[in-house]
Amino acid sequence: MSADSNLHIDPARLWGSLMELARPEFGGTPDGGMRRVALSAWDGAGRDRFRTWCAAAGLGVRIDPIGNIFARYEGADPARAPVLVGSHLDTQPTGGRFDGVLGVLAGLEMLRTLAEAGVRPDAPIELVCWTDEEGARFGRGLIGSGVWAGELALAAAEALTDRDGISVAAALEAIGYRGHSAPGPLPDAYFELHIEQGPVLEDAGLRIGVVTGAQAQAWFEAVITGREAHAGTTPPAARQDALVGAGRIVDLVDRMMRARGQDGRGTVGRLEVRPNSPNTIPGEVRFSVEFRHPSDDEIARLAAQFPREAGFIARDAGLRLDIAPRHRIAAQPFDPACIALVEQAAAGLGLPARRMISGAGHDAISVARAGVPVAMIFTPCRGGLSHNPAESITPEEAAQGCQVLMNAVLARATTGPAGTAREP
Amino acid sequence: MSADSNLHIDPARLWGSLMELARPEFGGTPDGGMRRVALSAWDGAGRDRFRTWCAAAGLGVRIDPIGNIFARYEGADPARAPVLVGSHLDTQPTGGRFDGVLGVLAGLEMLRTLAEAGVRPDAPIELVCWTDEEGARFGRGLIGSGVWAGELALAAAEALTDRDGISVAAALEAIGYRGHSAPGPLPDAYFELHIEQGPVLEDAGLRIGVVTGAQAQAWFEAVITGREAHAGTTPPAARQDALVGAGRIVDLVDRMMRARGQDGRGTVGRLEVRPNSPNTIPGEVRFSVEFRHPSDDEIARLAAQFPREAGFIARDAGLRLDIAPRHRIAAQPFDPACIALVEQAAAGLGLPARRMISGAGHDAISVARAGVPVAMIFTPCRGGLSHNPAESITPEEAAQGCQVLMNAVLARATTGPAGTAREP
Repeated sequence: MSADSNLHIDPARLWGSLMELARPEFGGTPDGGMRRVALSAWDGAGRDRFRTWCAAAGLGVRIDPIGNIFARYEGADPARAPVLVGSHLDTQPTGGRFDGVLGVLAGLEMLRTLAEAGVRPDAPIELVCWTDEEGARFGRGLIGSGVWAGELALAAAEALTDRDGISVAAALEAIGYRGHSAPGPLPDAYFELHIEQGPVLEDAGLRIGVVTGAQAQAWFEAVITGREAHAGTTPPAARQDALVGAGRIVDLVDRMMRARGQDGRGTVGRLEVRPNSPNTIPGEVRFSVEFRHPSDDEIARLAAQFPREAGFIARDAGLRLDIAPRHRIAAQPFDPACIALVEQAAAGLGLPARRMISGAGHDAISVARAGVPVAMIFTPCRGGLSHNPAESITPEEAAQGCQVLMNAVLARATTGPAGTAREP
Repeated sequence: MSADSNLHIDPARLWGSLMELARPEFGGTPDGGMRRVALSAWDGAGRDRFRTWCAAAGLGVRIDPIGNIFARYEGADPARAPVLVGSHLDTQPTGGRFDGVLGVLAGLEMLRTLAEAGVRPDAPIELVCWTDEEGARFGRGLIGSGVWAGELALAAAEALTDRDGISVAAALEAIGYRGHSAPGPLPDAYFELHIEQGPVLEDAGLRIGVVTGAQAQAWFEAVITGREAHAGTTPPAARQDALVGAGRIVDLVDRMMRARGQDGRGTVGRLEVRPNSPNTIPGEVRFSVEFRHPSDDEIARLAAQFPREAGFIARDAGLRLDIAPRHRIAAQPFDPACIALVEQAAAGLGLPARRMISGAGHDAISVARAGVPVAMIFTPCRGGLSHNPAESITPEEAAQGCQVLMNAVLARATTGPAGTAREP
């Protein structure tokens, strides 16, 4: 055990900060939800409050050109690569109070605890607030971590525009978060605490999810075309009903998912009917399709099988089907040593935990793609509900996740980068 | 054969009138379509032009309180109940140039022909332009014929409002068509010429549809409720995907239709997904369902079977289904003697014809419900396309339909009401 094993975070202070950032001036809504969309005035206000807290905790803050905020807690050996922790402060337009925010404020609570106790780990610890994880405004998410990781060019990110034609660059300027800090060396490791956004932990009665990686994904956009015609006058043999074909393809996606057991995901989330009039046979239906699975091979099979089988369904119904692959994301395994540290931290605290895959996208995935050793910690959320004003966790769950985060980070920061134990 | 059997309508004059009413000042659009929505300024202008033409043909015109226009061609026996012909001038917001208009202007062409030739049948002939057949503005169609037939109370019709809160009464006043003519005695018979709005005649290479009645209908509104959740994090066992259930019910409607051969109709024309985001499992889907069939018994069976079977599908998928019956319309057979006159007229002209059911709603159905002997004549339209700017017929098809109309009407107007031949 390290010298810091008896350090305890302050659950009330953590909860207080969470509730503070949920106030109306930071995008809180009367239904208990949030609308702190990336680079909005509410996001600016939230970031400002976060920086004030960082300054009060004695942390040095720098801001990079895409608006990522880094707060540094110095290590005993400032030359060592820092251990990075963090998440995001932006929310969905009708989002909740914990998605993202928990990871940032748990990191802050950890650094407040270390500062108060005067504990100085060997490696520096940096806390990051990534810009626009949610993707609710500029057409794509993971903007800050994507630029940082080199997956997205800065100029391309700056040129993204919202519905009103406002660019990311202009939006950063408007809230004063277009910074100048140059990228430092890669961190030694990255830990991110996040709510699960799914029902697995709650259903299993567990407190901590030890996240071993992210799923592979394949996304499609489909257009199925039939012939618009009068619903009352067109006999069965003359019908080319685009919605009948689309309905069967929605069912196909569900069946393809279920054939792969509980690890698969298959969803048609968006579907639009034209002309969408009760008395007219639909002439066109446009819809999204996404599959996810922990295995790249399984996603490759799904991505090959789906257009073929959907095509048979369309042909049978006399319809034309155009399926365009939209994006394909490889599975991203996290780092075995970092995963082990999280697992050990949970066990050391006596918290029931299990290993699991992340179903959602997270900044941690960008960071891992840059070659940084990464692990994530999940905490339960009520009913698995997220991206929703009713998103809910308990103060105890927040505190437990924060404590696991701190214990894992301290273990990493007081050992060598390769996991070799150092003498305290 | 009657004395009038050699009378011929003027195809060029009929086509000229059709093209005249398709001009921009009467609601014509650059794509060749129409937007002469009921009681709009364009409808007012079209009605005015129609009245000018009636006056020029020597017809006396009266307007009733719901705006139906009646033009009278006097018979040799003015005391006899008139034979009524007509249809409607209003169109869908993006409608075509022939739906409705053909029946009104063919009636006008017939009376112009009689007037020019100085032919006077025994019974008067009246030509009617019904108010708002399409139902595109005030939430229900067949307003003029419905009030006339006593199916819809005048006060209720006048109180209907459009999206801007404008009432039928105010809209009638605005274009000067809130008339005062009292209802006369019921007509002896009613004949309506209309485009088929379906593909049956064209596909079979026929020129005339002898319409024997209207289908029974059962309409429903359905709401299927699941649980909105993250598409990436929610495992198959925890999903309640409302769109998967809705897709299977769309397929059920299609299968129930096809199980009844070519006489059945079953359509989900409108379907809306919430929240309709690619990354979220749909929590709610709302959709319309309608079934049609020539037999009331078959519609009764469909209306009982559908909610039951759809309920099984929803239950299997862990979804809640609420199905509300919206309306139920009984089958309406037309009059055998009138049907025979149309069939004889087509045969006398050597035009290939067949008996068929009307799939769409028409003013003729309101008139038949009032107890008037009714028949309808269908002419082909390209690709069965209607309610569409591309709606298309040929001048020859219009003329043939008009000639059949005139021959059938003259046969009726020169015989006794019960079909007993009178000496010429």
